[in-house]
Amino acid sequence: MRNPQLNSHGELQHLLTIEGLPREILTAILDTAAPFTEVAEREVKKLPLLRGKSVFNLFFENSTRTRTTFEIAAKRLSADVINLNISTSSTAKGETLLDTVDNLCAMQADMFVVRHASSGAPFLMARHLAAMGLDHIHVINAGDGRHAHPTQGLLDMYTIRHYKKDFTRLAVAIVGDLLHSRVARSQIQALATLGVPEIRVIGPKTLMPTDIDRMGVRVFHDMRAGLRDVDVVMMLRLQNERMQGALLPSPQEFFKYYGLTAEKLACARPDAIVMHPGPMNRGVEIDSAVADGPNAVILPQVTFGIAVRMAVMSMLAGS
Amino acid sequence: MRNPQLNSHGELQHLLTIEGLPREILTAILDTAAPFTEVAEREVKKLPLLRGKSVFNLFFENSTRTRTTFEIAAKRLSADVINLNISTSSTAKGETLLDTVDNLCAMQADMFVVRHASSGAPFLMARHLAAMGLDHIHVINAGDGRHAHPTQGLLDMYTIRHYKKDFTRLAVAIVGDLLHSRVARSQIQALATLGVPEIRVIGPKTLMPTDIDRMGVRVFHDMRAGLRDVDVVMMLRLQNERMQGALLPSPQEFFKYYGLTAEKLACARPDAIVMHPGPMNRGVEIDSAVADGPNAVILPQVTFGIAVRMAVMSMLAGS
Amino acid sequence: MRNPQLNSHGELQHLLTIEGLPREILTAILDTAAPFTEVAEREVKKLPLLRGKSVFNLFFENSTRTRTTFEIAAKRLSADVINLNISTSSTAKGETLLDTVDNLCAMQADMFVVRHASSGAPFLMARHLAAMGLDHIHVINAGDGRHAHPTQGLLDMYTIRHYKKDFTRLAVAIVGDLLHSRVARSQIQALATLGVPEIRVIGPKTLMPTDIDRMGVRVFHDMRAGLRDVDVVMMLRLQNERMQGALLPSPQEFFKYYGLTAEKLACARPDAIVMHPGPMNRGVEIDSAVADGPNAVILPQVTFGIAVRMAVMSMLAGS
Repeated sequence: MRNPQLNSHGELQHLLTIEGLPREILTAILDTAAPFTEVAEREVKKLPLLRGKSVFNLFFENSTRTRTTFEIAAKRLSADVINLNISTSSTAKGETLLDTVDNLCAMQADMFVVRHASSGAPFLMARHLAAMGLDHIHVINAGDGRHAHPTQGLLDMYTIRHYKKDFTRLAVAIVGDLLHSRVARSQIQALATLGVPEIRVIGPKTLMPTDIDRMGVRVFHDMRAGLRDVDVVMMLRLQNERMQGALLPSPQEFFKYYGLTAEKLACARPDAIVMHPGPMNRGVEIDSAVADGPNAVILPQVTFGIAVRMAVMSMLAGS
Repeated sequence: MRNPQLNSHGELQHLLTIEGLPREILTAILDTAAPFTEVAEREVKKLPLLRGKSVFNLFFENSTRTRTTFEIAAKRLSADVINLNISTSSTAKGETLLDTVDNLCAMQADMFVVRHASSGAPFLMARHLAAMGLDHIHVINAGDGRHAHPTQGLLDMYTIRHYKKDFTRLAVAIVGDLLHSRVARSQIQALATLGVPEIRVIGPKTLMPTDIDRMGVRVFHDMRAGLRDVDVVMMLRLQNERMQGALLPSPQEFFKYYGLTAEKLACARPDAIVMHPGPMNRGVEIDSAVADGPNAVILPQVTFGIAVRMAVMSMLAGS
Repeated sequence: MRNPQLNSHGELQHLLTIEGLPREILTAILDTAAPFTEVAEREVKKLPLLRGKSVFNLFFENSTRTRTTFEIAAKRLSADVINLNISTSSTAKGETLLDTVDNLCAMQADMFVVRHASSGAPFLMARHLAAMGLDHIHVINAGDGRHAHPTQGLLDMYTIRHYKKDFTRLAVAIVGDLLHSRVARSQIQALATLGVPEIRVIGPKTLMPTDIDRMGVRVFHDMRAGLRDVDVVMMLRLQNERMQGALLPSPQEFFKYYGLTAEKLACARPDAIVMHPGPMNRGVEIDSAVADGPNAVILPQVTFGIAVRMAVMSMLAGS
C-alpha cells in the first residue's frame, strides 16, 4: 500500500506521522525550514506563498499554544486562517467528523490543521479526502490521541541538527512519561529515520509502553545510567491528569527519580542540549536551574517550530 | 412604510428577511453570486471589494458553522473580520444590545453579521442605525430566533436555480419541523417570490404552525403523498433539544414517518434534488444512503452559500 | 531609576501606566492620534505601519470590548493579530506568566497587549523583556488589577482636549467607585500631568481610597457640591460584583446619591461634557436621559480610543 502521506510523485501530500516518511522527505522539510528562520527576523515578517489560501485550524481538543504556532506560521505565509474550536459547536450538534470535513471542503478549504483526542482522526480525514478525489486539500496532524505529533518531532530534529549538525554520531535520551506521549513516538521515529545510532528511553515501568523495545530503543529505569554521555536530553511533559493517577506516587516523587536536575544532567556530555516540548512543569519533570540554564534550547525549539510549520505548509501548498 | 431593508434608491441597505424583498433584488443577489463561485476555484481566492472594511460577526448564539461561512466570505473579499461572541462578555456585564451596537459603530464598523436568539434583534439594530443616521452601516441577519435566516434561504434558491434553471415550473417540498424553523420561513418566502407554483410542507401536526396555510403552501402529514412528483426536497434539521420534548415520540419514530429514505424519495421525480441546511442528523431526518446519494446537493449548497454571502456583502458595501 | 516605559533616548518603549510619563510623551501620543481619527473615515481604513508585525492580545481576564478595540487598531495598522484567551489554556496547564511570555517571544512577537487581574503583571513582563535583552518587543497594559488602564486614561485626555482645547483652565470631576477603579487612577495622573488645576473626586466614603488626597484631588461625598461648575464629568463604572457587596446598600440607593441625572448635571457648567468608560449600567451610575443627552461624549470616546491605540502602537513600533 502506498504511504497515504505521499502523492504519486512521492511528494508530501499530508503530514500525519513521522512513521514511514523517507529520510529525504524529513531532510527536505528541515532544509526548507532554514530560510524561514530568517524571515522571522525581518522587519516585515510576511511571505506571499499561501496568499488567498484558506487554512482551517480544527481543534477538537483545546491547545492555545499549538494552535497559535500554526496560526502564526500560516499568517506569515499570508494565508487566511480560520480557527474552529469544534468541541463547542458542530460535534455538540451531533455532526460527524467527516460531515464537518465535507462541509469545510465545500467552503474551499485548502489545508486542515487537526488536533484530536482520538488517535487516527487525521488519517481518517486524509483517507476520506482521497476517496472524494480532493487531492488539492492537505491535512497536518497537530496531535492525535497518543499516536503522533509530527511537527513537534520535526522541530525537535531541526533543533538537534542546528546544534549537533550530524545525526549519525549521536546518543539521545528521551525521559519521562513514554506511555502516554504522542510526542515521544514521533521523536523516536524521526531519530531512527535520520540515522541516530543510540536512542534511549528513560522512565518508570508504569509509564513505559510494554512493546517499546520493538522501536529500536534502549530502555532505562535509572535516569543517571540512561543519561550517561548522551548528546541530547529530550524531556517529556508530565500531563497534569496523570499526576493524580494511580501510575505515579506523587509529583515530588517523580521529580526525585526522573526530574532533570543539574546533578543528573552532569551525567550527560558537557555540551549536551536539553529540550522540552512545553509547557513545562517546573519542579516536576525539570528543575528551573536546568530549564533556564546554559544547556537548555527550549526557547529556540519554539522559534524553529514556527519555521518548520511554515516549511510543511509551503511544501504541501506547492505539491 | 418603506421596506427597512431598502434605501431610498431601492437598493439593498440591510438583509434582514426574505419577506417583502422584491423579486428583482433576489435575482440580483443570485446573479451577483454566480461569478463568486468561480473566485473560490482560483489559485488566489481573494478580491479587494471590502478591503479596509470592518465586518463584525456578532454572535449572541453560538454557531461555529454559520459564523465560519460569513468569516470566509468576508476574508475572501479582503475585509477585516472581528468575531464577537457576545454571550460571554458585554451582555454579561449588563450592557444592552443597542449600547453594544452604538459602541461598535463608534469603532467605525461597516457591517454587522448578527445571530440572535430573539426574533427581531437584527431589525431592532437596523431601525436604530436609521434613527442615528448611520446609513453607511449594514446589518445581515444570520438567524434570529424562529424568525428568519435569509442567507440560508438565498443559498437554497441559488442551488435550486443552478440545478433546475426555471423556478416557475417547480414543485418543492419542505419536510420536518416547520414550527421551530427560521430556515423554513425564509425558504417559503423566497420560493413564493421567485414564482414557484407548488410549495408543499410536510410534517407532523405537532411541528406545523397553525397558520401555515396562510403562507400559500399545501400542507401534508403523509410524507409519501407530499413528495409525489416534486422536483426539490428540502429537508429541515430537527433540533436536538426538540427530540427529547413532548412534541415528538422519539427520533426513531420521527425517522420512520418523516426521515428521508431512498424508498420515500422514490415518490419524487427521478431527477429531484435533495437539500439540507446542515448539520445533518443522519438517521433522524435523513438516511445516510440519501444524504450521500446521487440526488443530494447538500455540499454544493455549502459552496454556493459562500458565494451568496460574498454577493450580499459586496452589494451592501457598494450601496 | 529610569522610567521602565522609556528607552535610553527617552522614547516610549512600553505603555504600562500614565504615572511618571512626562507631559511631552502624553502630548505626543495625543498629537499622533489626531490624524488616525481621519483614517477611520476613509473608504479604505488601512495603513501599512505595522505590516508583518505580530501583535498578541494576551487576555488573562475576559474583556471582549477592550480586546476588540486593540484588535481593530492593530488590524487597521495591517498587523497580524493573534488573540489568546489565556485563562483557558496554558495557565490551566500550570505554565507561569513568564514562561508564556518567553514562548511568545520565541515565536517572534513584536507587541503584547495585556489584560491581567493582578496589578503589576505588565510591569513584570516589561522587566523580564529588559532582563532578556528583548528591547524590540513592546508591552501595552490593557488593564491590570486595580492599578492602571493607561489607554483609557489617554483616550479620555484626547476627548477632553478635543472638546475643551486647553487643559489648564478646567475643573474636572470623577464620580463613583474610586476605590476599585484602575481607570480613575490613570485619569487622575493624566489630568495632573497635563496641567488640569482642579481635579475632584466624588463618591461614598466606602468606595474612596483612604490615601486619595495624596493624589492632589479634592474629595467630595456630596455629588451636587462636587459637580458645581465643573467643565468635565467623568463617570466610573460600578462593577456588578460590587453591587451585591457590603460596601453598598443597593444599586437603587447608589443611583439616588451618585447616579448622574439631568438634575444633578445642572450643577455643572452648561457646556460640561459627560464621559463614561463603558459599558454603562444605565439607571445605576448614569441615567439614560444623560447618557443619550446633548452633553454626553461617550461614543466619541470610543472612536477616539481606536485612534489613541493606533497612535500608541505605531509609536512603540517606530521606537
